[in-house]
Amino acid sequence: MSASSLDLLFDFLRFPSVSTNPARKADVAACAEWLKRHAESIGLEASLHPTAGHPIVLARNEHRSGRRTVLIYGHYDVQPEDPLAEWVVPPFEPVVRDGVVYARGATDNKGQIFAHLCGVGAALREGGDLPVNVIFLIEGEEEIGSTHLEAFLTENRAQLAADVIAVSDTGMIARGTPTFTYGLRGIASLETVVSGPRTDLHSGIYGGAIMNPATALSRILASLHHADGRVAVPGFYENVRPLEDWERAAWRELPFGDAQMLEITGAPALFGEAGYTSVERTWARPTAEVNGLGGGFQGEGTKTVLPREAFAKLTFRLVPDQTPAEVIEKVSYHLRAVCPEGVRLNLRPGHGGKPYVTNPHSDFGKAAQRALARAFPKGKLALIREGGSIPIINTFKRVLGLDTLLLGLALPDCAAHGPNENFPIENFEAGIRLNRALLEELA
Amino acid sequence: MSASSLDLLFDFLRFPSVSTNPARKADVAACAEWLKRHAESIGLEASLHPTAGHPIVLARNEHRSGRRTVLIYGHYDVQPEDPLAEWVVPPFEPVVRDGVVYARGATDNKGQIFAHLCGVGAALREGGDLPVNVIFLIEGEEEIGSTHLEAFLTENRAQLAADVIAVSDTGMIARGTPTFTYGLRGIASLETVVSGPRTDLHSGIYGGAIMNPATALSRILASLHHADGRVAVPGFYENVRPLEDWERAAWRELPFGDAQMLEITGAPALFGEAGYTSVERTWARPTAEVNGLGGGFQGEGTKTVLPREAFAKLTFRLVPDQTPAEVIEKVSYHLRAVCPEGVRLNLRPGHGGKPYVTNPHSDFGKAAQRALARAFPKGKLALIREGGSIPIINTFKRVLGLDTLLLGLALPDCAAHGPNENFPIENFEAGIRLNRALLEELA
Repeated sequence: MSASSLDLLFDFLRFPSVSTNPARKADVAACAEWLKRHAESIGLEASLHPTAGHPIVLARNEHRSGRRTVLIYGHYDVQPEDPLAEWVVPPFEPVVRDGVVYARGATDNKGQIFAHLCGVGAALREGGDLPVNVIFLIEGEEEIGSTHLEAFLTENRAQLAADVIAVSDTGMIARGTPTFTYGLRGIASLETVVSGPRTDLHSGIYGGAIMNPATALSRILASLHHADGRVAVPGFYENVRPLEDWERAAWRELPFGDAQMLEITGAPALFGEAGYTSVERTWARPTAEVNGLGGGFQGEGTKTVLPREAFAKLTFRLVPDQTPAEVIEKVSYHLRAVCPEGVRLNLRPGHGGKPYVTNPHSDFGKAAQRALARAFPKGKLALIREGGSIPIINTFKRVLGLDTLLLGLALPDCAAHGPNENFPIENFEAGIRLNRALLEELA
Repeated sequence: MSASSLDLLFDFLRFPSVSTNPARKADVAACAEWLKRHAESIGLEASLHPTAGHPIVLARNEHRSGRRTVLIYGHYDVQPEDPLAEWVVPPFEPVVRDGVVYARGATDNKGQIFAHLCGVGAALREGGDLPVNVIFLIEGEEEIGSTHLEAFLTENRAQLAADVIAVSDTGMIARGTPTFTYGLRGIASLETVVSGPRTDLHSGIYGGAIMNPATALSRILASLHHADGRVAVPGFYENVRPLEDWERAAWRELPFGDAQMLEITGAPALFGEAGYTSVERTWARPTAEVNGLGGGFQGEGTKTVLPREAFAKLTFRLVPDQTPAEVIEKVSYHLRAVCPEGVRLNLRPGHGGKPYVTNPHSDFGKAAQRALARAFPKGKLALIREGGSIPIINTFKRVLGLDTLLLGLALPDCAAHGPNENFPIENFEAGIRLNRALLEELA
């Protein structure tokens, strides 16, 4: 890695390209423009594609027939910097401390996608060419659901024709451990609103005579799980593919398990579906989670109201072969069945994405694993799934017909989406090596 | 009622004496000063007593030995005028529409206490004396918990010696129906906080491996009630005094019941403890209510976090012979017992007040009822309890050793504490008659 690579990464990180914030629209656009110019500066042909939201950046080397084409996907938009007070450095003024870069986007995803650009830049500088045709597809709306990417893929299918897709936007199981992710959970979301009286009421004058929406909501949410942690929605596990024996055996050998999960989360104890380890529960078993709930008086002290409404934001993580539509239908049926009398239940399904799993033992899979082993020569390769969801992977499969190789560079403590997001310089360097090895192995 | 009585009430109502708002401190003080001068103008000896908060106004006629002393309590402070946008008239510019006065404080409590002053003023004007010794005790902190009243009562016990207390700060069951309130519910409050991981976590990466605090809170709250509406805390009903047969019979005859409760609340249906009517449930049965709850993401859309914490603000309305300490102890024990593993439970007891009930058939109670019947000659007297709590009534009993007669002039639709608070002139006039009849009947 040249010193200028890190300087350039810092320039990239300084853009507050928060895609969800309308006030940052010009910053997002400026970041895309900078990215396009940078791609040109390393010898790629680059273009900027406006959408109804934020622009998409494309860049490619000179393609030659007869060799493979690799599409490298990433995103230049970042999560909001809240809660600002918990950052130990300003989120858009990157600094290095003890060999680690701190900044919003350092890992997710600027640091990772920029390592790929640096790898390509170095190869072009040193050899004048790459072993494969490369297409960079870098969007500005990943953190807000990739709203305009599917239409773009559909309209530019020919221009984006490739053999395989590579993405560095997933995790490493531990520092120095090359990690190949062959599965992701899907997601289904459902906003649940329980309403009762016309307005907030005096809890002295009316308390006892009507169903309290917050109580009704609590009963509904409590009905989502059995006491032993299993999801209690009838039929929820119907289409869940059991873990394979080799997966359970391999995962037991990983340098990541219950102890690390307990330490990272800081929870008083682990808890989950009986009969599974933490890793199995988060990677290969579905969940029902409350992401937020609210209703009535939330200020300091006491206000004796009987709230007119209470809500919960629910998401369900899905595993093969569950589908968002099927799960939302089963959950909705269940919630309506358990909702007490005396209140109204309003269910609002939100975004969804199918779970994803590929065969890690395919030719491309094996090539990717060799590249990872070259980038992190000291670690033992880990074959994992992940608990998160990257809905765009399914879109790539559906629209472009392509499998995606997930070559993560994010450490468990990278604080993506949180305060003090960080990316070790050693991962940045490994990412550059990974890119060069990957293009060679895929060739 | 003389025309000037209404003009003077309007002057009283024009003071924005919002006790909770520090910016209104001078307005509150000016209102107290005005009240003292008014009491003097009708022939009473009046004094202003500063406290660390807002001043207390005392006024008395010339006391003579050998006759009874009646302490009339009220308050000149009012609730904030929010939400201002929902008022059809400015809250501190009283107007009369269709025989009804609209203004903040019109019912609660300026209109009601001023009717008592007008009654005393008229009696002094007409007869030169009253049939009893009267002490007016009018405070400026009722809406903020009567913070400094108990100390004042303790310090001025001798000066405040009386035979009985009269308060007009409760409700009438219906327009024109003389209403004697002989019981109030008590209150106990408990803030409940469930915490788990160190920070909000990514619900994809960690979901399934730890107990979600929002789920744990939901289970805890769901455990507060049986499905049929009974509170499920062990021992909760242990000290609950059963309703007497005459109460149930009398309440069934009232012009207020399930139909009115349904209409006023706007709830889809009534719901409550099996075996009781709405009126019985709200006046004579204890409750467990969630006044507010929150945790995790509450904004628009989706944020896939596993919240670090979730909270609920609980209050319990108590009936004789429950006590706040006993109920908080039982509830705390129950909540700790049902709290799932994997989270921490933090319980913070808040303010409490005992329930209150007097014998409506005592000599003073019967005198008060005769006075009410004279003030509202067309209606059938209603003997009721109320669901709300007036903690100061217990303080009077404890510090001064006196029972309180609750002679309400507030209609169900008076909008106390809300926008468009109002007080019919006919209730103001009845309040003046009530004061004169009361002092005669108590003599």
